[in-house]
This record gives sequence, C-alpha cells and structure tokens, in this order.
Amino acid sequence: MKISLLIIGDEVLLGQVIDTNSSTIAKLLYKEGLEINKKWTVADREEEILMGLSEASSQSDVILMTGGLGPTKDDITKKAIAKFLNRELVFSEANKSHLTMMLNKRNIPVTPLHMEQCYLPADAEVLDNQMGTALGMWIEHNEKIFICMPGVPYEMEYIMIHGALPRLKTMSSGLTVVHQTIHTVGMGETEIADIIEPKLSAYFSEISLAYLPSQGQVKLRLTGKHTDPDYIEARITECRKIIDNCLPAQIIGYGETSLENEIGKLLRQKNKSLSIAESCTGGYLAHKITSVAGSSDYFKGCIVAYQNEIKQNQLKVSEQILNQHGAVSEECVREMVKGALVLFNSDYAIATSGIAGPGGGTPEKPVGTVWLAYGDVNLIKTRKFLFSRDRQRNIEATATFALIEFWKFLKNSL
Amino acid sequence: MKISLLIIGDEVLLGQVIDTNSSTIAKLLYKEGLEINKKWTVADREEEILMGLSEASSQSDVILMTGGLGPTKDDITKKAIAKFLNRELVFSEANKSHLTMMLNKRNIPVTPLHMEQCYLPADAEVLDNQMGTALGMWIEHNEKIFICMPGVPYEMEYIMIHGALPRLKTMSSGLTVVHQTIHTVGMGETEIADIIEPKLSAYFSEISLAYLPSQGQVKLRLTGKHTDPDYIEARITECRKIIDNCLPAQIIGYGETSLENEIGKLLRQKNKSLSIAESCTGGYLAHKITSVAGSSDYFKGCIVAYQNEIKQNQLKVSEQILNQHGAVSEECVREMVKGALVLFNSDYAIATSGIAGPGGGTPEKPVGTVWLAYGDVNLIKTRKFLFSRDRQRNIEATATFALIEFWKFLKNSL
Repeated sequence: MKISLLIIGDEVLLGQVIDTNSSTIAKLLYKEGLEINKKWTVADREEEILMGLSEASSQSDVILMTGGLGPTKDDITKKAIAKFLNRELVFSEANKSHLTMMLNKRNIPVTPLHMEQCYLPADAEVLDNQMGTALGMWIEHNEKIFICMPGVPYEMEYIMIHGALPRLKTMSSGLTVVHQTIHTVGMGETEIADIIEPKLSAYFSEISLAYLPSQGQVKLRLTGKHTDPDYIEARITECRKIIDNCLPAQIIGYGETSLENEIGKLLRQKNKSLSIAESCTGGYLAHKITSVAGSSDYFKGCIVAYQNEIKQNQLKVSEQILNQHGAVSEECVREMVKGALVLFNSDYAIATSGIAGPGGGTPEKPVGTVWLAYGDVNLIKTRKFLFSRDRQRNIEATATFALIEFWKFLKNSL
Repeated sequence: MKISLLIIGDEVLLGQVIDTNSSTIAKLLYKEGLEINKKWTVADREEEILMGLSEASSQSDVILMTGGLGPTKDDITKKAIAKFLNRELVFSEANKSHLTMMLNKRNIPVTPLHMEQCYLPADAEVLDNQMGTALGMWIEHNEKIFICMPGVPYEMEYIMIHGALPRLKTMSSGLTVVHQTIHTVGMGETEIADIIEPKLSAYFSEISLAYLPSQGQVKLRLTGKHTDPDYIEARITECRKIIDNCLPAQIIGYGETSLENEIGKLLRQKNKSLSIAESCTGGYLAHKITSVAGSSDYFKGCIVAYQNEIKQNQLKVSEQILNQHGAVSEECVREMVKGALVLFNSDYAIATSGIAGPGGGTPEKPVGTVWLAYGDVNLIKTRKFLFSRDRQRNIEATATFALIEFWKFLKNSL
C-alpha cells in the first residue's frame, strides 16, 4: 500500500509556516508499520491542486491531504477534489450540525460563510473533528483512497488518530518495517561510517543505514523490511549491538529520545536534582529540560540573569569579576554555577553566558562567543565556544552543547 | 521563471526531521521577489530521486535540491542527478582541496570515504560552503538549472545566500510580487472574513488574500503581482488601510514580526522593563522574549520556579497560599508577579502556573489548567485557561496567550 502526502497551502510554499504536519503524520503512520512514499506540496490554486492530485494518485494507493478546508476564499480543496473526481459538491447536514455545535460552544454566531463549508464532494464520508469546525473526509475512488484534513496541526492530528489511522491500519500489507534509531554525540558522520560500516557490510543486503547529522549529534537509523517480523527484528538487534560495541562513549540512547530525556534518566537514576543559570540562552535551556514529562521530579528551577545586576544580586557573582573579566567569561559562569547551586539548593547546576548577537560583539569577544559551566559543589567544569553570527543558531547551539557536555559529565560520574 | 524544490531524505518522509530548509529557502527567495512554485519530497532511493527530477524539471525552470550530498551510503544525490542528466561522475580537485582544508581545520584525518565525496557530475559548477565539507552544485542542462545543496540547515543557508541567490536574482522576470502580512489576535478567521471581505471585494481581481490561523492568532496575507511595482504596492497599501480600519483592536503588527517583537517595541516606547516568573512554561516564555535581538535593553530576567520551595523562597509566595489554594491558583500567580517585580526590580512582570501534564491532574484541576497573571505594582490582571492534554501544546499555548494578554495590557495602558 503506497501512501503519499499532498500538502496544500501557499503559506507553506512561501515559508511563512513550517510544515510540521508531515512529520506528525509520518510518525503516526510509522507506529502502525506504515510509511510515506512521497510528498507533494502545492499552492492554493485549483490547477496546482489538480496537478498534484493527478501525480499523487498515479503513484499511490492512499493520498493524505492537508489544508484548504476552512471557510475562507483561499480554501479551495473541496472544489478541486470534486472536480478531479468528477463529483458534485452536495450540502452535508452532518457537517452543518457539527459546525453549529462547535460554534455554539464558542458563542460564535453561524453565518452564511460558515454554511459554505458544509458543501462536500458527493459520497465523501466525513471524519469527526472535535478540535475545530472543518470535518475531515474519506473518499474512495477507482481503488484509491483520498483523505482530506484541515491544515491546523491539532485538528489534523485529531482526525488522523480518530478517523484515518484506525481504518488505514486494517489495510496494511504483510510486510513488517522495523526501524531502530541510535542517538550519538561527539563524532562526525564520516568518522562513524568509517568505524561501523566495515563491520556491518554483511547486513546491507537486508538492512539500510542512514545518518541524520545535526549540531554535535548524529542519529543512525537502521531500517529493515521482511515478511517475518521476528527475523528482521533479530537482524536489526544484531546490527545495533555491533554499533554499541563500536561507539561505547558516543551513544546516548535509542528510539524516540533526546539529550534532555537521557539527562533526566541519569538524574533519576542518581536521585539528584538540577538547576540552571542562563544568560545568553534566555530560558531556552530550561525549556529543553522542562519539555520532558516528569522533569519536575529532578528540576528545581532556573534563573535567567539577563542583566549584570541580576547576576550580582541573585547569583552572587562578584562585581570584581564582572568588571575585570566581564559577564562572558570563565570566571563569571563558574560563579553562576555556584550561585545557582545555592539559590535553588540543587545537586548540579549548569550556567551559560555569551554574546548571542547580532549586537554586543567586540574584537576580543565577537558575536557567538559563549562560556559554559556545569558541575556540583566539588567540581565545576567549563568550556568556551565560538558559534556563528546568527542569534537563534547561537541560542540553540549553546543549549545543545550544554546538554551534550552535561550528559557526558553525568555519564562519567556514574 | 518557475522555481521548484526537490527535498531528498528518508528522514523527512519518516518524520524524524522536520523540514525547516524549505521555509528558509522560500523566505530567502521571497526577499528577491521570487517564489517557490511547487515542492517534491522524495526518499533516498535512486528511482525516487529520478522520478522527482523528471516531474520537477518538466514543470520548472530552476530546481533547488537539498540532501544526499554527504559522504555516507545513503547520500546518492550526485549519482542520481548524473544518471538523470546522462553525465559522468568526475573527480573534482576543487572539492578535494576544500574538503582537505575543512577537515584539517577540525583536526579530522582525510579518509578514502571522504574522497568519494569529491566525484561530481561533469561540468557541474561548485558553490562554496564555508560551513561544511559538502560543496553545493550549479548545473545547467537543456535550459534548466539544477542547484544541489546539503541538507544540514546552516550549510544549505550558506550556499543559498552566497552561491545560489545572487545568480538567481539576476535572472528573475519583470513581474513584481508584493506581499503584505498583517498579524492579528483575538478574532477567528471566519469572523475576520465576514468583516473585511465585503469591503475588499473590488480588489480581489488583482490581489489575493489568505488567512493563516494559529492558536489565538490569524495572519492575513495580501499578495499582488504586476509589471508596475509602484501601482501594485499602492493597491496593497489601500487594502491594508481598509483592514486597519476594520480591525482597530486586533492588529498587532505587519510583515516579519511577532508578539514578542511587538511587546519589545511597546516596552522600548514606554522605556519600561519586564521580568517573568514561570512555572508550567519552564523557561519557554523567557525564551520567546529573549529571541528578539536587543531584548536585553528591556528584559531584566526570569525565574523558573519549578518547585514550591522556589516559589516560597525566591518569589515570596506565602506557605498559606500554597497550602490553601495550591501552586496552580489565581492567588499564587498574583504573588509570583509581585515577587518577580521585587526580585528583578522591573516595571512589569508576567507569571504562569499550570499543569502541563501528562501527570499531575486532579478532578478540580485537570491537565491543561493554567493560571496567568501580569501587571505592575499598581494593577495585576489574571486569567484562567483550560488547554489540552498534551504537554508541548500546553506549554506553547500558555506562552502564546501570555504574550497576547500582556500585549493587550501594554497597548491599552499607552
């Protein structure tokens, strides 16, 4: 069963919106052993939607579509698909009562514009949407299935989980797809490939290996397909063990995990708490840590000390250090760690201070200069980085490398 | 000149990576009056890349490609494009010297695997990449241009800005595309459409209007194309003024802006400072505020009080309030605002406390319950929300509505 995505929306092509729906859909399908074969992204214009439908339906059995189901001028998906399938648009009472119910709940009066949303291609089955007014649609036509969903992420997700996925699940083929993702830090993809590929060559006829590099990290993804799930699962596990042995210091975890999640596991294991003192990362590092469910079990808190007076008053960084070395200095981040340990009464602390930019750089400390410190009452480690000239990238890179270095520190002190 | 994107990578189709490159490329092109016409996303398999190339080149003049240029097994873009164009792969000395220089800088030994990266389709021009080892390629073939870039976002961006864009710019047609984006809060898209569309109908032959809804916000995007830039610019401005008059309380700003950016502008205008006390948002609200360049001019700092002891000791929330009303209560967020005003010596403060989930809910305070407070020494306003059961969505929704409410508060107190 070949599944394709057809994403409809000028806002996606123009880059005003980052398409996260595709990833959400892919992950939901993946849990059921289903994969997206190909994706088309087209503009909100009838001829483009028709062309996309034509290409996608010639190469797939199931076409999942998002976008263009709303009530406004640019929402033309229903018209386009009705034209493509040569069907009439008919008024749906089911859609009307759903819409009326949803709008009443929100105390919004029902207008003629809303009623236009209730015209659907003939014989389309509606898929419930408890998150919004636009219902999904399931349309079968010449052995193909067209599934239409709104572009609003949580509405799409609701329809996917409650409407589309249960039906797609029952239709999947006998072939089992097994994936295993291995998360590594501290080594580039070429270096990793040189080490592991010679030892895995016997598996490459059945198992494919992909490298997903990002700053400071490389994810390795093993994929195998087979009619016998146990067999391919065992082969993937063999590969994983070979990689485990090749990269003893680099692997942080497997599957759906992250640095912040692995740090959480280690802190739980040690029954220790963490606090953070941030300057240049402005709360982003604490956000990463607290994005993990249950992080309140080990995370005490964070202070974003965006001004020197806060570093002095709350974190007890001495005026002398700030005058002599500046806020972006090894001395300052060391004091920030000590200050956070006291302020939050935590076992460990991490501190960041840097020049995120675009302003604030000097010849000695250009934009992108960052000092990191982490440790406990006995040992504080520091490291200096020189990242880029881009503010967002500096914030993200600082947080990522803070997590990497702190993970290594926790791991080694086990 | 029709421009298309061809994104290559299993990781994107599988949803393991969210494709932000497309949006970055679209925004860079947009600044030069260029638009992406259509996008294909295909797997790391030769036949899929060939099919994607065939479809994209039949519908476009320029095909921008990302992904598959690395040194590892799954990087097969060069082979595929060479096959598609019926060209040999030839060893590039330019690529070799670039690669050697980049690896030497990082103290990584050059291996045979690296050298394989240096085979390029014959007559491909290389595009410099100072951010990584994989050079970009500019290939002209039968009146079409193929531009290949690596998938790593900052490498792609470097090549786009320094190599691809300057050349594409000189080739664009005489038609000027003008966009205007209007950011609104506090009204749904249907309601907005009902108000503004009757007054804009005379413009719809020349100007298109799109609605980009997200939680609590709707962006309106006006687009016009014309040979006379002044004429279409004037028409767009007329439309904008009509919308301004229709939505006096809803518009927060225009163009590339955001709530956090507009809040920054208002704080600067009033010469006032801000601090934050976060619980459930865990640093994310401070991250939003500090993502604005220059925010250190008005942002004092933030405390993430993830434990009651921190709320008591640092923010001076009384034990009595915590015992009687709990941390997720109107009383607590009020005290948190007062505490932050003192702790950071700021003019304004915002506080959040809620149950982000998935754990921690009770019948009286289910997951998704959030209390928000904001204000100054004279006036503190509060609001209660009930969001969803999803942790990330609750964190993001809380931050968004905190920004919306605080923006309204600042705006009204001008």
